[in-house]
Amino acid sequence: MDVKKPASQENLNGDESESQISHLALDIGGSLIKVVYFLRSNGSGGSVDDSGKKSDPVLEGRLHFAKFETSKINDCLEFIRSKNLHLAVNMLWRQAFSRQYAFEDIYVLFICLQIKMNPGFRHHDASASDKTLIKATGGGAYKFADLIKEKLGVVLDKEDEMDCLVTGANFLLKAVHQEAFTYVDGQKEFVQIDQNDLYPYLLVNIGSGVSMIKVDGDGKFERISGTSVGGGTFWGLGRLLTNCKSFDELLELSHQGNNRVIDMLVGDIYGGSEYSKIGLTSTNIASSFGKAISDNKELKDYKPEDVARSLLRMISNNIGQISYLNALRFGLKRIFFAGFFIRGHAYTMDTISVAVSFWSKGDAKAMFLRHEGFLGALGAFVSYENHGLGGLKTHQSVQQFAVSETYAGKKICCLVNEDLNDNESIDFGVAFAA
Amino acid sequence: MDVKKPASQENLNGDESESQISHLALDIGGSLIKVVYFLRSNGSGGSVDDSGKKSDPVLEGRLHFAKFETSKINDCLEFIRSKNLHLAVNMLWRQAFSRQYAFEDIYVLFICLQIKMNPGFRHHDASASDKTLIKATGGGAYKFADLIKEKLGVVLDKEDEMDCLVTGANFLLKAVHQEAFTYVDGQKEFVQIDQNDLYPYLLVNIGSGVSMIKVDGDGKFERISGTSVGGGTFWGLGRLLTNCKSFDELLELSHQGNNRVIDMLVGDIYGGSEYSKIGLTSTNIASSFGKAISDNKELKDYKPEDVARSLLRMISNNIGQISYLNALRFGLKRIFFAGFFIRGHAYTMDTISVAVSFWSKGDAKAMFLRHEGFLGALGAFVSYENHGLGGLKTHQSVQQFAVSETYAGKKICCLVNEDLNDNESIDFGVAFAA
Repeated sequence: MDVKKPASQENLNGDESESQISHLALDIGGSLIKVVYFLRSNGSGGSVDDSGKKSDPVLEGRLHFAKFETSKINDCLEFIRSKNLHLAVNMLWRQAFSRQYAFEDIYVLFICLQIKMNPGFRHHDASASDKTLIKATGGGAYKFADLIKEKLGVVLDKEDEMDCLVTGANFLLKAVHQEAFTYVDGQKEFVQIDQNDLYPYLLVNIGSGVSMIKVDGDGKFERISGTSVGGGTFWGLGRLLTNCKSFDELLELSHQGNNRVIDMLVGDIYGGSEYSKIGLTSTNIASSFGKAISDNKELKDYKPEDVARSLLRMISNNIGQISYLNALRFGLKRIFFAGFFIRGHAYTMDTISVAVSFWSKGDAKAMFLRHEGFLGALGAFVSYENHGLGGLKTHQSVQQFAVSETYAGKKICCLVNEDLNDNESIDFGVAFAA
Repeated sequence: MDVKKPASQENLNGDESESQISHLALDIGGSLIKVVYFLRSNGSGGSVDDSGKKSDPVLEGRLHFAKFETSKINDCLEFIRSKNLHLAVNMLWRQAFSRQYAFEDIYVLFICLQIKMNPGFRHHDASASDKTLIKATGGGAYKFADLIKEKLGVVLDKEDEMDCLVTGANFLLKAVHQEAFTYVDGQKEFVQIDQNDLYPYLLVNIGSGVSMIKVDGDGKFERISGTSVGGGTFWGLGRLLTNCKSFDELLELSHQGNNRVIDMLVGDIYGGSEYSKIGLTSTNIASSFGKAISDNKELKDYKPEDVARSLLRMISNNIGQISYLNALRFGLKRIFFAGFFIRGHAYTMDTISVAVSFWSKGDAKAMFLRHEGFLGALGAFVSYENHGLGGLKTHQSVQQFAVSETYAGKKICCLVNEDLNDNESIDFGVAFAA
């Protein structure tokens, strides 16, 4: 799929001598804004490569990730402004974040990487640039472009949403060790990705809605399907049904609930029996929320925990089923599920995994990504390189290096500071040894 | 797919000389009980065939259809008992229903047909039979067998649910003129079914849950898929969200609503723009119920009409999409949608039709059945013939006759008393001219 840039962007590119690029990229979705930003670690900026030869200067630092609710975009912009993330300045990590930054909606995790500067790279300060470009994707890059220009004085350089998702997924699958994993019977198992056998795969990104993308290579992809029953449905219907104040509260509720209170099971219809002839056991769900029809209970008579559980199961199962059917259609063996709907939540991953396994009769397995929510933002960040805006260039060898050398156990170590768990406090880093 | 009868039924069959069969068949689902019963028209019972030769006696009459909520099964049993429908008596239509029977949950429509008696047929009265068998299908045939034996003194002869759905669908598609139709842009168009080109097709039965069955011929089928997001979900979630007292009230509400109030559209994310590159217009739904996340409204702040509309659209679209993906998988050109979820409701049929058209890029068309809700019960009724319980036998030639002769414009006329419309007052008859 070729990405044809709109005329406005071509003009910006043609004008690059007067533009600066930030170390920040945004993915502004229907529900959430995902932020990726690069901060140099202290002392980086050397210009000697591994063989000791003088080379282009290299920045070392960490990619940071944060998220905000789209409805609270002003909080997000204030965060960016207060930290000067939108300016074309090579910020130092220790300067910017010497203290833990406390903010309710920030999601902290990071990947360390090296960025190789183009020949002719100059350090800029904010005042020297006539305009600063920030890579942005998602529908909000269009919707909020004027607001962001007004508040931060920067121009959004819009990148195609699907393109960014795929670029972000490919980056993670190639560059980050132990990125992909399966989740079966409550057990997470990391999947070693052979880069020579990565494509084709199905990428299922579960944001407010769901996109299903067949990925055939770098920049080669097609959005083959999707569904409107996604994270926005879970949160939206969940709020209406439970009065939860946040997605995470709803997810936490679901953890404690029992879906059998509200779902109509095969056994409920068959008087406790199964319908084995067509492969349905008595505990299979015949009708999601189907028990809510048959008695005189009202919403207030149900526990919010049980409602949240049935809702999560309905949506996760549905996404798993439609994903599998699309994978089958195109003969795709691997399905990677990403997007901020999942949030490393055990029951969500379990339901999706069981759905894929059930509908494929065990032939297919669902896989998940540790940086699940940031594919689009990462893709936008990586696109600074792809579109040659100058100034900075992601060091190509970093991606190759990270995978090959990690497997060999040399030079690169993977620091998993905390394991994935049911809430979102994932703290993850890949550090490249000096 | 072979239907292997359980041992208890084999015993009953082996004992048939002492058993009588009723003119009644039941399909007891998770939400609804569907009832089909045959009543003779006055003066039928002759025994001369078309060529004037003496033949086996023939009953002429009408098939009647009624439905009850499964939770009100006692009302259903009282209806059957009060009309003696469960007894092996050849009831006369005019005797039994000389007055219009008023009952809230009865769904009145009928097909006229002839029933040919087996050689040796004897008229029975209720007292002469040691036990009466009633054909029944659906999970409730297991769950409520004891209750029905206690209340009506009859034994349920259980027929496989999928088998009955397929038998019922094949019967309707072959025997009833103007049974199948498409629904596009608010226009219903009847489809002439060529019996030589009927198979294979996909039957999607939307009851409490949804079954998707690949049909390859009479008795040849496989349940290839399904979804728990069906009529029970619409009704169950709808009750919790709107406090509606009945499915039909909820459907009527949806008719007046606007889904854009609650659904997050592509244009809502993209600031009014479309995302044309991947074929999404600004009015496509990106996330069902997705707008309910982004403001401070509670459930009481939304109009029940709008909630019902979003819910109906989400479920109908989802069923259409999964159905199409399964049809594609097996190369099935025709998809027939049936089940009591639809109820001839314009918006439901429109959404399913649009979904199938959208996902197939116009290659596939959804088709609907006039007797959509009674496939299982009809299949159970027809199975009196298939299993040779004696006493009555559906006249084989009726099915063949009805289609071939109707197309030729001879002997049989099709009386459509009232057109399909948004509520369920469908009154439909096929009459065979003398």
